[in-house]
Amino acid sequence: MSDYELFIGNKNYSSWSFRPWIALRHKDIPFRETLVPFDFENGNPEFAAFSPSRKVPVLKDGTLTVWDSLAILEYVADCFPDKGLWPTDKAKRAWARSISAEMHSGFTALRSECSMNMQRPVAAKAVSDAVKGEVNRIVTVWKECLEASGGPFLFGDFTIADAMYAPVVSRFETYQLSNDPVVSKYSEAMKATEAWKVWEVAALKETWVVDTE
Amino acid sequence: MSDYELFIGNKNYSSWSFRPWIALRHKDIPFRETLVPFDFENGNPEFAAFSPSRKVPVLKDGTLTVWDSLAILEYVADCFPDKGLWPTDKAKRAWARSISAEMHSGFTALRSECSMNMQRPVAAKAVSDAVKGEVNRIVTVWKECLEASGGPFLFGDFTIADAMYAPVVSRFETYQLSNDPVVSKYSEAMKATEAWKVWEVAALKETWVVDTE
Repeated sequence: MSDYELFIGNKNYSSWSFRPWIALRHKDIPFRETLVPFDFENGNPEFAAFSPSRKVPVLKDGTLTVWDSLAILEYVADCFPDKGLWPTDKAKRAWARSISAEMHSGFTALRSECSMNMQRPVAAKAVSDAVKGEVNRIVTVWKECLEASGGPFLFGDFTIADAMYAPVVSRFETYQLSNDPVVSKYSEAMKATEAWKVWEVAALKETWVVDTE
Repeated sequence: MSDYELFIGNKNYSSWSFRPWIALRHKDIPFRETLVPFDFENGNPEFAAFSPSRKVPVLKDGTLTVWDSLAILEYVADCFPDKGLWPTDKAKRAWARSISAEMHSGFTALRSECSMNMQRPVAAKAVSDAVKGEVNRIVTVWKECLEASGGPFLFGDFTIADAMYAPVVSRFETYQLSNDPVVSKYSEAMKATEAWKVWEVAALKETWVVDTE
């Protein structure tokens, strides 16, 4: 049992919110959701009421506040050791944490040039060499994991590593960033989850829209 | 026992390498160190031989490769549960992970304007408002932790959270970024560790030097 309340930003844009959300939902861990719309121009002043870093996502569990996507996911793994949030094998868990941390601190060109935006019509976008290099690196990461595990998720069953890369699946499709077969196969598995579908339906209904190219 | 080999960059500059290094050393966990000098201009081609992401640090443990500072520290905590790498209390551990993750993915203005450079003469530097905001946020993080724990480290004894903020202690001093008493007190505790001293002596001896303001 949990008394989780997850604070998130707009579903169409908040890639960081999507990460713990899809993990919690896919693992059938109950939580209440509080969506607080972004107010980028003013520095998101409303976030100060619940978020020490003024960023989303934030998880409240009773009097405890946990912030940052990765710290939230580690906390959930701590609370629910039987839900398979990380691989049970220590070496595979280290691998999963390596690629999760690489996503957490990196791929900044992809993140800034190709924002998650599920409402944007699917169409190729001209991107920088930096983005192309990051796309190649991500395809390599996915290939190595899926070859070793046999899929359908990076480490077989769905883990935090998949949650960390879920928004990348959306970006790859929206901006048509790779035609590697491993990408379409992994994307199919991700998009077939009920959790993905529920998030996407809500994202497509949102009326708060920012122009992105 | 461990068969750890830690690959790091130049000690004077590699703030990310410093994080697992100081934790391993302070916790008396044996490891071999392999220092591979940066070659920023050419994209660090030598790193490709041992690092999947072409970044440092990387930890090898037999046939296992773990990359990224935070993933390495989580792996070490997994291998040595009795070394107190994270607080034992679950709520405090979640707090420690929140501030560690906030450091891992954030404070980008501070990181880019005020590189760790132990050889730079101590002197105030004019910094952007973004850096000033990040410095204030870090001072708040430290204050809240030290008030709750009583110090000398963020959660009482030295944990991964201290390792994550160790390079910030160096930057705050080098560039004279804060005169808050909590900063000088925390810095004293950090700099009194044998691990800090050993790293600093080596950093000051390095002859590979990049100009920073």
